[in-house]
Amino acid sequence: MHYLDWAATAPPYRDILEAAVGVATERYGNPSSRHGAGRDARALLESARERLGAAIGAAPSSVVFTSGGSEADAIALLSTLVGKGERSVVISELEHPAVYEQARALESLGVRVVRVRPERDGVVSPGRVAEALRPDTAVVAVMAVSNETGAIQPIGRIVEAVRSAAGPRRPFVHCDAVQALGTIGFDARALGVDGAAFSAHKLGGPRGVGALYLSRPISPLVLGGGQEGGMRPGTHNTAGAWAFAEAAARAAASVEARMERARALERRLFDGLRAIPGATPLPEGRLPGDERYSPYIACLSFPGLAGETMTRLLDEAGVAISTGSACSSSKKERRSLDAMGVDRELSFSSIRVSSGRDTSEADIDAFLEAASSAYIRFRV
Amino acid sequence: MHYLDWAATAPPYRDILEAAVGVATERYGNPSSRHGAGRDARALLESARERLGAAIGAAPSSVVFTSGGSEADAIALLSTLVGKGERSVVISELEHPAVYEQARALESLGVRVVRVRPERDGVVSPGRVAEALRPDTAVVAVMAVSNETGAIQPIGRIVEAVRSAAGPRRPFVHCDAVQALGTIGFDARALGVDGAAFSAHKLGGPRGVGALYLSRPISPLVLGGGQEGGMRPGTHNTAGAWAFAEAAARAAASVEARMERARALERRLFDGLRAIPGATPLPEGRLPGDERYSPYIACLSFPGLAGETMTRLLDEAGVAISTGSACSSSKKERRSLDAMGVDRELSFSSIRVSSGRDTSEADIDAFLEAASSAYIRFRV
Repeated sequence: MHYLDWAATAPPYRDILEAAVGVATERYGNPSSRHGAGRDARALLESARERLGAAIGAAPSSVVFTSGGSEADAIALLSTLVGKGERSVVISELEHPAVYEQARALESLGVRVVRVRPERDGVVSPGRVAEALRPDTAVVAVMAVSNETGAIQPIGRIVEAVRSAAGPRRPFVHCDAVQALGTIGFDARALGVDGAAFSAHKLGGPRGVGALYLSRPISPLVLGGGQEGGMRPGTHNTAGAWAFAEAAARAAASVEARMERARALERRLFDGLRAIPGATPLPEGRLPGDERYSPYIACLSFPGLAGETMTRLLDEAGVAISTGSACSSSKKERRSLDAMGVDRELSFSSIRVSSGRDTSEADIDAFLEAASSAYIRFRV
Repeated sequence: MHYLDWAATAPPYRDILEAAVGVATERYGNPSSRHGAGRDARALLESARERLGAAIGAAPSSVVFTSGGSEADAIALLSTLVGKGERSVVISELEHPAVYEQARALESLGVRVVRVRPERDGVVSPGRVAEALRPDTAVVAVMAVSNETGAIQPIGRIVEAVRSAAGPRRPFVHCDAVQALGTIGFDARALGVDGAAFSAHKLGGPRGVGALYLSRPISPLVLGGGQEGGMRPGTHNTAGAWAFAEAAARAAASVEARMERARALERRLFDGLRAIPGATPLPEGRLPGDERYSPYIACLSFPGLAGETMTRLLDEAGVAISTGSACSSSKKERRSLDAMGVDRELSFSSIRVSSGRDTSEADIDAFLEAASSAYIRFRV
């Protein structure tokens, strides 16, 4: 099988998971317990926190372990419900459902939600984010890398624009960095964000593990046993945290070599695509090597053949891709593409091809061959 | 080391975790993805759901996988914030912080919280729960087994009392069953609850995995990618769900044989305690074999020696116990004991001893010897 759906999930590092079994069984104590078994577990947990922090540009005290990227996003957004007074949030139209749908839920509870459209190239303009601010804006959320088009968002400049426009009000700038860590990399401190969400399974770590970077404490809505400095309740997942830190450290150590490989695969993909009459990347005119996009994610359109049909045909040919976010694959919407002003026929016929650490030229070639043959046979 | 803190966390089954590595690497697809890798993972996830359902008395469609017991509790409680109109919740004074602290957070947002005290024996009276209901009561939450005293709550009779008192209003009756599954067992359908929370790591499964039983859908506050029927967002943890189901099935298959062993260990513990002058179980007068208490959990008091000191002294002697819930071990409070009307001197000097599948007579004897010797030396 040719797996080209790494943005949905990455096959895990087997050696890391195997080592994590040793951690789970040997450091089995509850890190909140005040006995030897608890202290052993706590020590390992804190070293994982330090290690993950180093991989994301964060002091250990700024790292909150969570059950995944979605929960990390939720913690940041739900904090707007705590306390008194009116609140609004500003999000981009590109956001993952963990932010987008959560914002909709907040909206139904009286929080005002302002949605910022990206430009036609899929990139959100810092100026537009700044313009969307209101005096009661509590949270601003823009993702690091679009999970649908691969567009890299100018997070550092967005932070600057927000700081400069909002002044001392200082809304909390949150960034869903799930598609950045392990691919293009992410440095929370350098970008200046207040919060950032990460997921272990996107980079070969275990499922059910993630992290929230917090430059300053917030008021969480979900409370419990006081773990993670009160930011996230629930018994610490020591082995999961360890495995996440290990996967993140591995990714951080090879980010440049991997980027080089990903750029080469991107070029091969785009070159091959040009040989398929009618097919086009989205946004149209995206070229390989364009630094506005992550080379790991490409949105491609085959006009006249529905993306869902193409996905099924490729699956039958042994190539795994998707129509967009796995988290919204049950819906027909192409929210990001619509917001970019992409023609409906093109967006309806779009698929997402995403690569990862094990992707080979043969995988790209298999995709191109299968897509070309399906397109020729089934194009309307 | 003599580990007698199973109520905080259970050492995991190594063979289950090792098999889970195989699941994670072979069924690595995102269950929401529409390709072969996704379908393979989905099939395994659904079989885990069925298997876990069988272990908790639930149809597969009533099982929502979560990141743990705390999150399962939070989903139930936070649903009171969704929709319009005033809401109140009724909880017992015994609840785990995942319920108790979450209720406090709801209170600060305008939800009225009514707290029901247990009787002196640590058991909540169904009649008192029924009396606490108000016309706007949305959620009633009483735990299955107190994590501090082991008192088994009459959940079936509480459900009946609530149904009978509330009639067609039908508040959602939620039960934190974290300390019941894998020990005394829990049957959601037989008890008639609307919701119940479970945690995998308490019964030898992995950390970061839990479940919420839902007899009927609720309106969750935390939204995202629509996984788990919209009840819990985040990429499915296929291997974690599988491992949880395996551990739960194993526990369910041997619940009676284990109970017999636990009762024998309880008797040994209480008999030994009687030989230590001044020491007493809490509530005072609890006897081994009393069906009001889980034999796996005992709260013991050594008046004149602070529980925290005893915990430290036992730790130095190689015996791991706790002062109460690990989730609140950083606080000096003894909320459950206070609510039961236990004398402050007794509660301040209390510790929790909890056993599990690997606990031996030698562990109990080691505890008794170390506790007796510490008590004689350091008692004030």
